[in-house]
Amino acid sequence: MARDTEPGEAGGAGGLARVAAEAGVSVSTVSKVLHGRSDVASRTRARVQRLLEQHGYGAAPRGRAVPTALAAGGLIDFVIGELDGPWAVQLVRGAEEALHAVGMGLVVSATHEGDGGQARNWLDALAERPTRGAVLVVPALTDAQRAGLARLGLPFALIAPAEEPPPGVPWVGATNWPGGLAATRHLVRLGHRRIAVIGGPPDRLASRARVDGYRSALDEGGLPFDPELVRYGDFSHGPAHDHALDLLRLPDRPTAVFAGSDQQALSTYRAADRLGLRVPADVSVVGFDDLDFADWVTPRLTTVRTPLPEMAALATRMVLQLLAGETPETTRVEVASELVIRDSTAPPPPR
Amino acid sequence: MARDTEPGEAGGAGGLARVAAEAGVSVSTVSKVLHGRSDVASRTRARVQRLLEQHGYGAAPRGRAVPTALAAGGLIDFVIGELDGPWAVQLVRGAEEALHAVGMGLVVSATHEGDGGQARNWLDALAERPTRGAVLVVPALTDAQRAGLARLGLPFALIAPAEEPPPGVPWVGATNWPGGLAATRHLVRLGHRRIAVIGGPPDRLASRARVDGYRSALDEGGLPFDPELVRYGDFSHGPAHDHALDLLRLPDRPTAVFAGSDQQALSTYRAADRLGLRVPADVSVVGFDDLDFADWVTPRLTTVRTPLPEMAALATRMVLQLLAGETPETTRVEVASELVIRDSTAPPPPR
Repeated sequence: MARDTEPGEAGGAGGLARVAAEAGVSVSTVSKVLHGRSDVASRTRARVQRLLEQHGYGAAPRGRAVPTALAAGGLIDFVIGELDGPWAVQLVRGAEEALHAVGMGLVVSATHEGDGGQARNWLDALAERPTRGAVLVVPALTDAQRAGLARLGLPFALIAPAEEPPPGVPWVGATNWPGGLAATRHLVRLGHRRIAVIGGPPDRLASRARVDGYRSALDEGGLPFDPELVRYGDFSHGPAHDHALDLLRLPDRPTAVFAGSDQQALSTYRAADRLGLRVPADVSVVGFDDLDFADWVTPRLTTVRTPLPEMAALATRMVLQLLAGETPETTRVEVASELVIRDSTAPPPPR
Repeated sequence: MARDTEPGEAGGAGGLARVAAEAGVSVSTVSKVLHGRSDVASRTRARVQRLLEQHGYGAAPRGRAVPTALAAGGLIDFVIGELDGPWAVQLVRGAEEALHAVGMGLVVSATHEGDGGQARNWLDALAERPTRGAVLVVPALTDAQRAGLARLGLPFALIAPAEEPPPGVPWVGATNWPGGLAATRHLVRLGHRRIAVIGGPPDRLASRARVDGYRSALDEGGLPFDPELVRYGDFSHGPAHDHALDLLRLPDRPTAVFAGSDQQALSTYRAADRLGLRVPADVSVVGFDDLDFADWVTPRLTTVRTPLPEMAALATRMVLQLLAGETPETTRVEVASELVIRDSTAPPPPR
């Protein structure tokens, strides 16, 4: 069965010759493109790649990453609820870097769900462009959306879904329970006995996991759980500020606050300032996320780092593996968060 | 010359019939796609659009926006030096919204210039994908890059270039001189007489324009210009902190600091805190940019809002107009910045 065949290819030299003829280039040029060599003009490479795909060279063999030659010029969609939040850019960065490494491009779009009648379905947008897969930062996927993605043949992965998705839906989250545990342990070890928590929305698993981590750290330290010290808001500024004011005005005031987001931590700074309390001398504050400004504010914020770029990179690589016909090692994974200790935490004031 | 021709089209019904035959659909379906009607399955629409473009229906007539039917599914590239900075997400958001409005998608990539040998040229990446134009957030465009974009037939616009680009290069900036003027005027009107400025890099026009605006406001208020009170750093944290410490330790200490970025303003907060000075009771601080956190920090930061989303939207619409063969009203424009007064500025302390 000796044939003049390039190893590991779908078609053999006959196929390559056909592609070369159609592209108006030599077989050697086609071979270069197939093997990801850089000494081919980019327009030529793009033309040859398209023909290679049409001739069935698109499916990568199992066990290899997406071949550079086939991936170059390809696109993956990144769909996010809103591009407003301070989280968005870190996720975009992680996904972009993962694709850049294999020579692919990232199409970024918001779901524009608030736009009412004007909003086009993001799934329609995906159908209209030559995208190869999708990384989705949406709270949940409807059955119809899942079916739509399957119909389009697009592999996908979710980032930080609100609830654990059903089996068969690949996703990447951050470890929330261990993050809440680490934040609260740090405060317990500093000697705090009255520790409050301001969580995100109580219907989000992420919030509940963090508060449960907090509770376990209290247990571990032999401290009682006081429901009065547990507040739920959303992850934004206003409600957190009111909760923090409320907590810091309690007769038996907490000496530390574990906030569910860096934004909420800044709201706690503001509430403390309003009451004439100093951070950390009078009240310690821990945030969650480690956004850029956590290191710029005064005092520098102790916080739990959510590895947003890594999460997005991992979800993107999952999509690339599925696209290459591979089985990712896992399709349901939480990336470890990590406590970053800065200047907003200290031992409690003497009583 | 009566022909069975759709008004405003490149080819006429003969061309449409050919497209219909090749796409395996009716002429009426092709016509629907051409006119942007939504009652066509998205996969069909994408196929028909591709054929329409191949048959020369791609160039929109002058004086109209990019026709929805031709735009839908199309892509514009957004290339930025780095996706790390806090500016990136606001620019991405503005560009994405402008494209969403016409049913197009945004490919986001960083130039990865720091990656050394591994970095692929962003121009090569553009050549490899079916992009229709480019919004570029790069300090400058080389002649080779400009020629490359022309060779690919890609219309483009620059956002906030370091220097004013040569004629023929479309760009959008923010008004820096009026921003510096407004920030400093605000401080003069509050009664400040010793006002310092911490600029960005002195080789950036944006920095120099802001400092010149500062100088004009001093002139206007009859205040002397003291070179000792003018410092240049970069737009980031470290150098600004050192400059601020230095300024606030001067024997005849300034009572107000105009910082060249919100980040530098936070560095000034930190320096003040270190010296036991309160903002704004002892020293007023004005920032530049109005990033998210300006409203979250304590005290809330008075700053000059750089309209980043609007700048990106304008640059994107410029590219769409060029793509449609139109002449934009202008291709060299600065979007007005605006002073946002919050809590970090107050009259100077009594002496």
